[in-house]
Amino acid sequence: MMKDIDQMTIPTFDDMLAAHDRIAPHIHRTPVLTSSFLNDLTGAQIFFKCENFQKAGAFKVRGASNAVFILSDEEAARGVCTHSSGNHALSLSYAAGRRGIPCHVVMPRTAPEAKKDAVRGYGGIITECAPSTTSREAVFAEVQAATGGNFVHPYNDPRVIAGQGTCSRELMEQTDGLDIVVAPIGGGGMISGTCLTLSTLAPETQIIAAEPEQADDACRSLKAGHIIADDAPQTVADGLKVPLKELTWHFVSNHVTDILTASEDEIVEAMKLTWKRMKIIIEASCAVPLATILKNPDRFAGKRVGVILTGGNVDLDTLPWVTG
Amino acid sequence: MMKDIDQMTIPTFDDMLAAHDRIAPHIHRTPVLTSSFLNDLTGAQIFFKCENFQKAGAFKVRGASNAVFILSDEEAARGVCTHSSGNHALSLSYAAGRRGIPCHVVMPRTAPEAKKDAVRGYGGIITECAPSTTSREAVFAEVQAATGGNFVHPYNDPRVIAGQGTCSRELMEQTDGLDIVVAPIGGGGMISGTCLTLSTLAPETQIIAAEPEQADDACRSLKAGHIIADDAPQTVADGLKVPLKELTWHFVSNHVTDILTASEDEIVEAMKLTWKRMKIIIEASCAVPLATILKNPDRFAGKRVGVILTGGNVDLDTLPWVTG
Repeated sequence: MMKDIDQMTIPTFDDMLAAHDRIAPHIHRTPVLTSSFLNDLTGAQIFFKCENFQKAGAFKVRGASNAVFILSDEEAARGVCTHSSGNHALSLSYAAGRRGIPCHVVMPRTAPEAKKDAVRGYGGIITECAPSTTSREAVFAEVQAATGGNFVHPYNDPRVIAGQGTCSRELMEQTDGLDIVVAPIGGGGMISGTCLTLSTLAPETQIIAAEPEQADDACRSLKAGHIIADDAPQTVADGLKVPLKELTWHFVSNHVTDILTASEDEIVEAMKLTWKRMKIIIEASCAVPLATILKNPDRFAGKRVGVILTGGNVDLDTLPWVTG
Repeated sequence: MMKDIDQMTIPTFDDMLAAHDRIAPHIHRTPVLTSSFLNDLTGAQIFFKCENFQKAGAFKVRGASNAVFILSDEEAARGVCTHSSGNHALSLSYAAGRRGIPCHVVMPRTAPEAKKDAVRGYGGIITECAPSTTSREAVFAEVQAATGGNFVHPYNDPRVIAGQGTCSRELMEQTDGLDIVVAPIGGGGMISGTCLTLSTLAPETQIIAAEPEQADDACRSLKAGHIIADDAPQTVADGLKVPLKELTWHFVSNHVTDILTASEDEIVEAMKLTWKRMKIIIEASCAVPLATILKNPDRFAGKRVGVILTGGNVDLDTLPWVTG
């Protein structure tokens, strides 16, 4: 079922450095914010890397831009394609737009119109499929065959992982050393990029992944020693439902210190607390790290902790704590 | 009805400079953010001064801190007092807490519990009154007589105006010159501080005040040439319901270029657009400047425009665009 790891190329630290140069004109060097309230509450010194302020509203634009701008002119002319109904679709559309090449996105026809509009707003061309894996794969194969576009996987792609790794490089430059970095884990793209960068740049810094209890496949994978993929888990942290794949498993299994989980209520509470106290919009997915810090105070108190706020694309009309 | 202007002391540019030194240890030098989306939308280059990230969540902590820290030790020992159910109550409580002196706040007993809790959270001591001007004034007189506390008016106070003026000083330092600065107007404290600072520092920069159509007393005052005070106007921009007073009228009548207004729908739309695109939490009151910019594109296109985002204290459970 799993592809052999040798079929893929594991990205290196130098790939990450090259990615950073390549994407710098197309991304924000996002700010690092602190909150004295949250420091007092946790006893830790927390540094929030604000990828919610990133272009297209999420860190995924780093990996997507690297994948787009690494292409030769000949490859680029055929465009890029992917399947995603989330931030990767937005980010790849944005990056392709910056290069002036087409971006085809396969999305389930049941995806919210607001998400489709956002992808179109960045110039993405949508082909709809039925809301099933079979339909998605069939439609995607057709689109790819018809366009010859380069497939950019949302996370299981060395170009994407190298791009995501640029985030923790900036975070280390913007802080004065960190004991721990916490990032959410879904498919593992951001965590893998973090491992890639920190294992060379700051090997003594612990990397902790934060995951919803209701989609804790990565946590169980780490314990089991092999990838466990859940079938359609349900969580408010909708960016974190996807399973690990071979490339991200490589980084997670070799470099992640621990995976901590939080309940749905804890995630929503941490999200609302961040909005209320830090006055910034973050997605439920990127509230999971703070939720796990609040849940495990002994683990973090007295430590310098980096938290990657992965994105800020929230449907403001349906907030998880407001019952309409 | 109006007190003679001579009874008050008009703060000077040097008062503002002294205030800045005095309050610097107690406030944030808030960041200035930009949005390429909003720049494209308006044709202007907009620089958002993020006082929503300020201590206690609003610019008002600047004036309140100046009023608290300018007191002699003898005066300070008797504490400070005010009447407010908004950001001034929070800010004065915060500043008094930093100095370790009592802060008495008179609030209507009908004020939301969340607001009372927030004031108490910053150490403020609340005395409740009935929700009428008569009761408020009577109760406040009692509290002041009993405590001997120094009265810090929310805006009609030279110490407060000098403190608010520090915001536009930072904004000018953080940008490379501005053609226009737009700030919301309620009682006129922020606008007066802006006038105080810019009339010396950047006299060629236009100062435009932004006001809700449904609470446009300042706009009508400017046209009439004297203060017009409305009785209990209703607007979603609840920080902007109060009337001008003699000190703020002095600055508004002498230095404000124009007052532009926006409807309730336009204010809510601008607020939501800021949340969605900039990923920051702002109050309805500080969405009024963007609403007026969107409404008067010819006035702002091609210009370098500073916008003061005055605060971020929002009740997240009752958003103006979500019908519960």
